[in-house]
Amino acid sequence: MPEQTVYKPGLDGVVAAVTKLSYLDVDAEEIVIRGYELIELAEKTQYLDLVQLLLRGELPSNSERSSLEMALRTEYDLPDGFFQLFKQLPKETHPMDALRTGISALAGYDKQLEARKEEEISQTAVRLLAKIPNVVANSYHILHDEPAVDPKQELPFSTNFLYMITGQMPTPTDADFFDQSLMMYSEHEMPNSTFTARVIASTNSDLYGALTGAAASLKGNLHGGANEAVMHMLLEAKTTDGFRHLLHQKLKNKEKIMGFGHRVYMKKMDPRATLMKKALKCLSDDKQRGDLYEMCEAGEQLMKEEKGLYPNLDYYAAPVYYLLGIPIDLYTPVFFAARTIGLCAHVAEQYGNNKLFRPRVLYNGPRGLHP
Amino acid sequence: MPEQTVYKPGLDGVVAAVTKLSYLDVDAEEIVIRGYELIELAEKTQYLDLVQLLLRGELPSNSERSSLEMALRTEYDLPDGFFQLFKQLPKETHPMDALRTGISALAGYDKQLEARKEEEISQTAVRLLAKIPNVVANSYHILHDEPAVDPKQELPFSTNFLYMITGQMPTPTDADFFDQSLMMYSEHEMPNSTFTARVIASTNSDLYGALTGAAASLKGNLHGGANEAVMHMLLEAKTTDGFRHLLHQKLKNKEKIMGFGHRVYMKKMDPRATLMKKALKCLSDDKQRGDLYEMCEAGEQLMKEEKGLYPNLDYYAAPVYYLLGIPIDLYTPVFFAARTIGLCAHVAEQYGNNKLFRPRVLYNGPRGLHP
Repeated sequence: MPEQTVYKPGLDGVVAAVTKLSYLDVDAEEIVIRGYELIELAEKTQYLDLVQLLLRGELPSNSERSSLEMALRTEYDLPDGFFQLFKQLPKETHPMDALRTGISALAGYDKQLEARKEEEISQTAVRLLAKIPNVVANSYHILHDEPAVDPKQELPFSTNFLYMITGQMPTPTDADFFDQSLMMYSEHEMPNSTFTARVIASTNSDLYGALTGAAASLKGNLHGGANEAVMHMLLEAKTTDGFRHLLHQKLKNKEKIMGFGHRVYMKKMDPRATLMKKALKCLSDDKQRGDLYEMCEAGEQLMKEEKGLYPNLDYYAAPVYYLLGIPIDLYTPVFFAARTIGLCAHVAEQYGNNKLFRPRVLYNGPRGLHP
Repeated sequence: MPEQTVYKPGLDGVVAAVTKLSYLDVDAEEIVIRGYELIELAEKTQYLDLVQLLLRGELPSNSERSSLEMALRTEYDLPDGFFQLFKQLPKETHPMDALRTGISALAGYDKQLEARKEEEISQTAVRLLAKIPNVVANSYHILHDEPAVDPKQELPFSTNFLYMITGQMPTPTDADFFDQSLMMYSEHEMPNSTFTARVIASTNSDLYGALTGAAASLKGNLHGGANEAVMHMLLEAKTTDGFRHLLHQKLKNKEKIMGFGHRVYMKKMDPRATLMKKALKCLSDDKQRGDLYEMCEAGEQLMKEEKGLYPNLDYYAAPVYYLLGIPIDLYTPVFFAARTIGLCAHVAEQYGNNKLFRPRVLYNGPRGLHP
C-alpha cells in the first residue's frame, strides 16, 4: 500500500508544486504574480509587462519591453502552408481541438524543440506566444470558410490578436480592454491546465506537448469552457427579467450555473471578475449596451442572495468578449492564448527543479482471479 | 495556505485516484488487472481478452471476443484523405508528435466526441484502439517517404498492427510475441501518462484530448522514451564486452542508465521484464541472434552487481521489438498504442466518479512588490 493513504479526490488542498510564479492568497483576496498583485499590474502595466515578468522574473525596462515586442512581432507568422492543416480538418472540429492540433503540429518546425536550457525555453515560449493567437484566429476563420486574416507586424501584440479575430482594426479602447482581459487570464497558480502542463513536462517532454495537453484540459466545460457557457446563457435569457427567470429555473432544477463560484475562492468574489466588471461597464457605455451590464449585475445579485455565490472571471469576461466582437466559440481559445505565458513559465520552472509526477492509487477491485 | 502543506515532490506515494482497474502490488510482486495477475493473463489469454477485461470489466466469452474483433476490424481505416495530414508535417516531426497530432485531428471526425455515457465511451475507445495503430505505422511511413501500408481487415488486431509497421506479413510466432508485448504495455496503474489522461478527463474534456495529453507525456524520456534509449545503447555497444564497457563508463560518469529501476518496483525486477526476457530468448533462438540475448543478460547481471538495480519492461521489450523488425523510433508509439486501452479505461472510470483535479502550491516567491 502507498505510504500516504489519505485520499483527497481531485487532490483538493494537496500541494503539487513549489512555485515562485503565482499564488492565490484567498485570505488577503490577492492574486500574487511574482510578488506583485495581479489587479494592480493590470491597472498600471500591460500584458507584455506581465509576459516579461512571468518569463524573466522581473518587470521589463522600456528597452526590454521593446525587445520583447520585436521578438514577438517577427514570430507572428505561421510556417508557410500551415493553414493547409486547418483546411483539412473536418468542419465540425471544435475550435479548441483545432488549436490543440495546431500547437501539436507546430512542434515539428521548432529547431529548439528538445532544448532545455532556460534561455532556449524562453525563446521557444516567445515563439509559441506569438504564433498561438494566429492559430486561434485563423483555424476559426478557415473552419468557417472565411478568408484567413494575416497578422500585421506593425501592430502591438494584443491589437494584432484582436484584429486577426475580428478582421477589423480595433479601437484603442477595445484593444486596451482586450489587453487587460489577457492579463486576467494570463496566470492563476495551479488550475487543471497548468497542472496538466507540469505533469507532462515532468517526463522531460517538450513545451509543445505540455501546451497540447493543457489545451485539451482547458477545453473541458468544468475548466475553460465556462466563459462560453455564460454567454450562451445571457443570449438565451435576452433580458434582465429573462435572466432572473432562467437562473431561478436552473436553481430549481439543481443545474450547475456556469460563471459562479471557484474551488479556491469559495465564498469571495474573484478579484479578476471585479476588474472585468469595470471593463464591462465602460464597454457597455461606449457601445450603448447598458442592458447587457444590467443583466449581468442582476444575475450577480440574484446568485449572491439565493446561493451565496460570487461571479468568477468567466462571468464578466464573457460579455466583455461579446462586446469586443469575438465569436463565442473563441472565448476559450482566447483564454488559452492568454494563459500560454503562464503555462510556459510553469513548464520552465518544472524543468528547473524536476521530479517525475507518478502518484499511486487506492485499488478497490477484486483480487485472486484466474483466467 | 492550503490545509495540507506536506509537499511530496512528484506526488510520490500520494494517492491520486481510487480505481478498480489495476494495482501494482510490489510486496506480492504482482501487477493486478481487475483482479487478475497480468503475467498469468499474458500466458493464458491474448491482448483482445485484456482489452475486453479493461473496457467491460470481465474477460470475454468466445462470442464477445469475436464481436470485439469485428468491431475493431471495421474501424482499422482512417478517414478518407487523413494521410494528407502526415504529408504536410515537416519531415523532422518526432514520431510521437506525429501520433499526438494525428489523435488530436481525429477528434473532429468522431460523432460521439461529446458523449459521456459508459457505452458511448466504450465505442469511442474501440475506434481509437482500432485507428491508433494505423496512425502509428503510417505517420512513420509517410514522414519517411515510404508508401503507406493500408490495414488488412482480414487480419487479427496484433497481426495487422505489426504488418502495417513492417509492411510484411508477420510469422505466427512473431505476431504472438508482439501480442504479448502489447499486453505487457497495456495497463500499469498510475504512470505519468495515465495520470495526465485522468487529470485532463476530470475537466470533462473528451477522450481524444485525454489521449493527446497522454501521448505528450509518454514522449518524455523519463517515461516512454526509455525503450528506444535501451536499443540505441545496445546497438552502440555492439557486443557483450562492448556493453559491459559502456555500462561501466556510464556508471563512472554517473549517467542515468535507461531500462533499469522503476520508482514503484524499486529493488525488485519488473515482472513484465521477466516475461519479455523469455520472449527474447525464444525470438533470439528463432532468428539466430543469441548474441543479443547474451548482451542483455550480461547487462542485467552487471547492473544487479554494481548498483542493485533490476531491468524494467523497457529493457527487454526493446530487443524484442528490434528482432520483430520494428523501427526504433516506433517503440514508444507502439507502447502508446498498446496503452490506449488502459488510458481509455481510466478516462471512463474518471468520468464515472469525477472530481476536477485542482491541487494547490507552496509559494516561495516574494510578496508586496508594486509596479
